[in-house]
Amino acid sequence: MADRIHTGRRKGGSDTRALIEAAARRQFAELGYDRASLRQIAQEAGVDPSLVSHFFGNKQQLFLRVVQLPFAPSEAVARITAGAPEQAGLRLARFVVGLLEREQTRLLIISVLRAALSEPEAAGLLRNVLIGQVLIPIAEHLAAGDAALRASLVMSQVGGLILARYIMALEPLVARTPAEVITMLAPTFQRYLAGDLTLEPVG
Amino acid sequence: MADRIHTGRRKGGSDTRALIEAAARRQFAELGYDRASLRQIAQEAGVDPSLVSHFFGNKQQLFLRVVQLPFAPSEAVARITAGAPEQAGLRLARFVVGLLEREQTRLLIISVLRAALSEPEAAGLLRNVLIGQVLIPIAEHLAAGDAALRASLVMSQVGGLILARYIMALEPLVARTPAEVITMLAPTFQRYLAGDLTLEPVG
Repeated sequence: MADRIHTGRRKGGSDTRALIEAAARRQFAELGYDRASLRQIAQEAGVDPSLVSHFFGNKQQLFLRVVQLPFAPSEAVARITAGAPEQAGLRLARFVVGLLEREQTRLLIISVLRAALSEPEAAGLLRNVLIGQVLIPIAEHLAAGDAALRASLVMSQVGGLILARYIMALEPLVARTPAEVITMLAPTFQRYLAGDLTLEPVG
Repeated sequence: MADRIHTGRRKGGSDTRALIEAAARRQFAELGYDRASLRQIAQEAGVDPSLVSHFFGNKQQLFLRVVQLPFAPSEAVARITAGAPEQAGLRLARFVVGLLEREQTRLLIISVLRAALSEPEAAGLLRNVLIGQVLIPIAEHLAAGDAALRASLVMSQVGGLILARYIMALEPLVARTPAEVITMLAPTFQRYLAGDLTLEPVG
């Protein structure tokens, strides 16, 4: 074990870092932010806990390191805003469901959402990156006004989808294909992004 | 303290039970299921921890006891299905936002949602009661087919609303009045409950 750590550090620590990151990503996803610990992450990675602190600092810093977005926000915005404005909701639904159907990005996203329920820093990550750098620019591009409100509404349905299909695994949703889920969500996203939100329903 | 417990038990324990239930409700809401403990709940209630176990059993049982729904499912269904079918989404939005705007019911609902992220029993409570006894009967009443799927979609947006407005407190949503939030959500609920979910968007 000591030899393994030593070898890792001789090579600049990149193997060791990768082992720690993989263990951290898995444990944050499975246990949630609160229950994951540097000690257990170090154990899974086969390294001494002090090495985790040496490379990554505290738990919060390790968490924010491994949850770096698996896409460039500006590319996501470009992809979702390219094409007919009335199909932006559909493109967004495809993008979101696409991320959630790939195991590695799904685990990351679930970690952030779980952490955001108790950790202001993780909630800030969602607010600054997903809302601030992706959803608000998309809403601004569509120019229907109230971009921050629209982004928050989209965020609410994205969060609810993660809860219902990917965490609680509600059977009727799990039984549907990704394409069906995209079809069901696209009109919701489209209305939140560019529809009339102030229309007073009769009754 | 011993006298207080004794007095409580002489009166059938109803005061003591109420004290424990109030402390449990508050701590589950504030700390979440995982971090709440019988010991701390007993301390806040001013009773011995053994008395909590005596009255309520383990933590899971205490939790399920205090999260009893603050409304009768059949009355909720009757209220939401009474009236024009095309306004069912609006009535549901009013009902949901109404529960979430009252502090006591909001704290209960947030507790259940937080617990449902890590505890299969709490997820089961949401599935059996909120989905099974409220949302599915409403969808069945509207007779658009796929009632269980429709109920799960509604659940996803309800969960996402709780996350975004009441837990993460996203500013653009928090800044809106309950009436505005109802107006924004009603068409989503209406489409999930009774709209066409299979319409393939062009593109």
